[in-house]
Amino acid sequence: MSADLESELKSAMEKLGATAREAATILARTGGSAKNDALGRAAELLRARQDDLLKANDRDMAAAAKKGLSDAMMDRLKLDPERIEAMAAGIEAIADLDDPIGGVIAEWERPNGLRVQRVRVPLGVIGIIYESRPNVTADAGALCLKSGNAVILRGGSESFHSSRAIHACLADALAAAGLPEGAIQMVPTTDRDAVGHMLKDMGQYIDVIIPRGGKNLIARVQQDARIPVMGHLEGLCHVYVDKAADLEKAKAITLNAKLRRTGICGAAETLLVDEACADTHLAPIIKELLDAGCEVRGDQAVCRTDDRVKPASEEDWSTEYLDAVISAKVVQGVEGAIDHIVHYGSSHTESIITEDAETADKFLSDIDSAILLHNASTQFADGGEFGMGAEIGIATGKLHARGPVGAEQLTSFKYVVRGDGQTRP
Amino acid sequence: MSADLESELKSAMEKLGATAREAATILARTGGSAKNDALGRAAELLRARQDDLLKANDRDMAAAAKKGLSDAMMDRLKLDPERIEAMAAGIEAIADLDDPIGGVIAEWERPNGLRVQRVRVPLGVIGIIYESRPNVTADAGALCLKSGNAVILRGGSESFHSSRAIHACLADALAAAGLPEGAIQMVPTTDRDAVGHMLKDMGQYIDVIIPRGGKNLIARVQQDARIPVMGHLEGLCHVYVDKAADLEKAKAITLNAKLRRTGICGAAETLLVDEACADTHLAPIIKELLDAGCEVRGDQAVCRTDDRVKPASEEDWSTEYLDAVISAKVVQGVEGAIDHIVHYGSSHTESIITEDAETADKFLSDIDSAILLHNASTQFADGGEFGMGAEIGIATGKLHARGPVGAEQLTSFKYVVRGDGQTRP
Repeated sequence: MSADLESELKSAMEKLGATAREAATILARTGGSAKNDALGRAAELLRARQDDLLKANDRDMAAAAKKGLSDAMMDRLKLDPERIEAMAAGIEAIADLDDPIGGVIAEWERPNGLRVQRVRVPLGVIGIIYESRPNVTADAGALCLKSGNAVILRGGSESFHSSRAIHACLADALAAAGLPEGAIQMVPTTDRDAVGHMLKDMGQYIDVIIPRGGKNLIARVQQDARIPVMGHLEGLCHVYVDKAADLEKAKAITLNAKLRRTGICGAAETLLVDEACADTHLAPIIKELLDAGCEVRGDQAVCRTDDRVKPASEEDWSTEYLDAVISAKVVQGVEGAIDHIVHYGSSHTESIITEDAETADKFLSDIDSAILLHNASTQFADGGEFGMGAEIGIATGKLHARGPVGAEQLTSFKYVVRGDGQTRP
Repeated sequence: MSADLESELKSAMEKLGATAREAATILARTGGSAKNDALGRAAELLRARQDDLLKANDRDMAAAAKKGLSDAMMDRLKLDPERIEAMAAGIEAIADLDDPIGGVIAEWERPNGLRVQRVRVPLGVIGIIYESRPNVTADAGALCLKSGNAVILRGGSESFHSSRAIHACLADALAAAGLPEGAIQMVPTTDRDAVGHMLKDMGQYIDVIIPRGGKNLIARVQQDARIPVMGHLEGLCHVYVDKAADLEKAKAITLNAKLRRTGICGAAETLLVDEACADTHLAPIIKELLDAGCEVRGDQAVCRTDDRVKPASEEDWSTEYLDAVISAKVVQGVEGAIDHIVHYGSSHTESIITEDAETADKFLSDIDSAILLHNASTQFADGGEFGMGAEIGIATGKLHARGPVGAEQLTSFKYVVRGDGQTRP
């Protein structure tokens, strides 16, 4: 890139940043009804402009086909009337949430009469870097607005036209509701250097970066960012079938955890079965998976249950397949399961199947993953399923937010202290 | 440094990290009574070994005098029987706090019967990089232990012997209580490259870095860290005297906010006075400050009140003096004060003096600093004063913790979900 273009991009990004910062100041003082008005209008516009959105998406799909994108990628990119309606309904669900801003999270009085309140405030400006799914534009824009934050969206180049059409609905809705259009901005270029600017040069404008995408994207963001990152790492989720497991529940949950949708981060990647119930439980569960079209890669004990099982390599225990493939292993009780998960897991989501409450408690307390389930599918790892309305992703870090990141997780707080002339002794 | 020494340091740091990680796993499963037992023993040992601590401190003080450290630095470095007793009592106060770990922060049930709990867990391993005050060794060690975290302490080279003697009390107390000594470790060298390793190479061992010290330290940490940082930036705190201020309160609070202790981050650095009360309030407050030995640097209106006032330069409005110096300015009402604070402030702590509740509410809601006070001194910006028992510092970032960072702020959470065989539709 020439020096001219480089400096042009830099100044364009700085303008985006300054505009976002200004909008954030206004949003922080904006009440819930104006934000909800804008969200309602955005949902209406998405429905009203269905044809425009489909046309823009056709352009992206045609370019993607030409580039030879995989079927899975093409499916993520695709918009249809149902998906557009789902985006609109999702925005309305976000509007229906309680306003997270301004609420008093805690309050107490000190012996000297000072009254301390912890009050919820927006984070400020959020930068979101994502890949091909155009609906992230709507979800992330709406969640940030609901939580009083300005947002700078940087979507994947594959979905550029789709995202731009969706973004136009959001921007027009903001203007119609009397809110600054700078509240939801989209980087207007597919130039990859724009991401570098967001990560390295825009610390005074962006308070937190949220990457949403595959391993490579996250790795790049964590490597280059000079701004705090709220990370969403891979989901290497486990299902552990304990000797006290109900076999029917174990079969149903394992099948659902692996196969309901294989491409999401809450999909199970490894099945662990207690050696104490291997004789009764292992073969039926493995057979169900194989019959449903799932490839199974197992240790020796698993391989013995069915000719169709392939032998697992060491690498399999740390592989997030995101596909109809599962690794499976026999372990020595809940202790063995915990050891395996602590060693190979990504601290995302794990489930134990057992009717023994004490064993369940051990699993739930000794593993430090963001989400731990008892007798339920790992695919419940989702903000909507948790009752948060929607999410930007599942945070696997331990700072600030962990698990589903919804509107409330996009806020901070400040302390308000009221006195009557107190000085400190 | 030779390549040999370099690789020796690197492997020593890695060993510290691995030991801390192992200790963190044990601490996460340790109940409150064992942690409190260790804290109680640490307090006893600090008292019992007073002579050792004073001797170690003498070595540091002698070296510091030889180096020509400033009086303020020497004062921060100094230990005496009262300060040792204060450290011991501080540790006992931390032991008396409720155990922050394992508590259920929130719980709810979903329509499908899933019961979701948000449960408090430790962060893991915390790296603390600080400067000359030896008491940070005791405070930080105790707070991290209370919150179930392992900690790697890296104090300033000036306080090396003092910190090592304090650390020995903590380590012996851990061992006596049957807890891993690796729970509280101190970097055993003053080699500056050790900090570089903590910031850049120890991401797999350290979950969060907390710097505590002056501008240069914080800047270096934020520049170099490849690990999340919980930042404690400068405290450019403001006192605004509104036209509806009670003059006596205004005088007392301003004096206390500036002069009670000038070297702490909650000390006021700038006084703003409403032009509408300049005739009645300005001169008396400025006179009090000057009479108390404070240097005042003012705008023209302030200069006119007293010959002793020096003219302020533009730089003064963004200077954290940490000394008996204050900048002072007349502003146009609460709006003018808010504009000044938003422009020049560091988002730490600000106070408004007024008897008008509506004006106070505007100030408290429109400024986004970590701590906002009404009719009280900025020197209340302190974990102990907030009722948190103790603090590692005042966070000025907006992610994770903000304001005083006590034991509860050193925790994260996980979701525990209990079901009865639920699969996701």
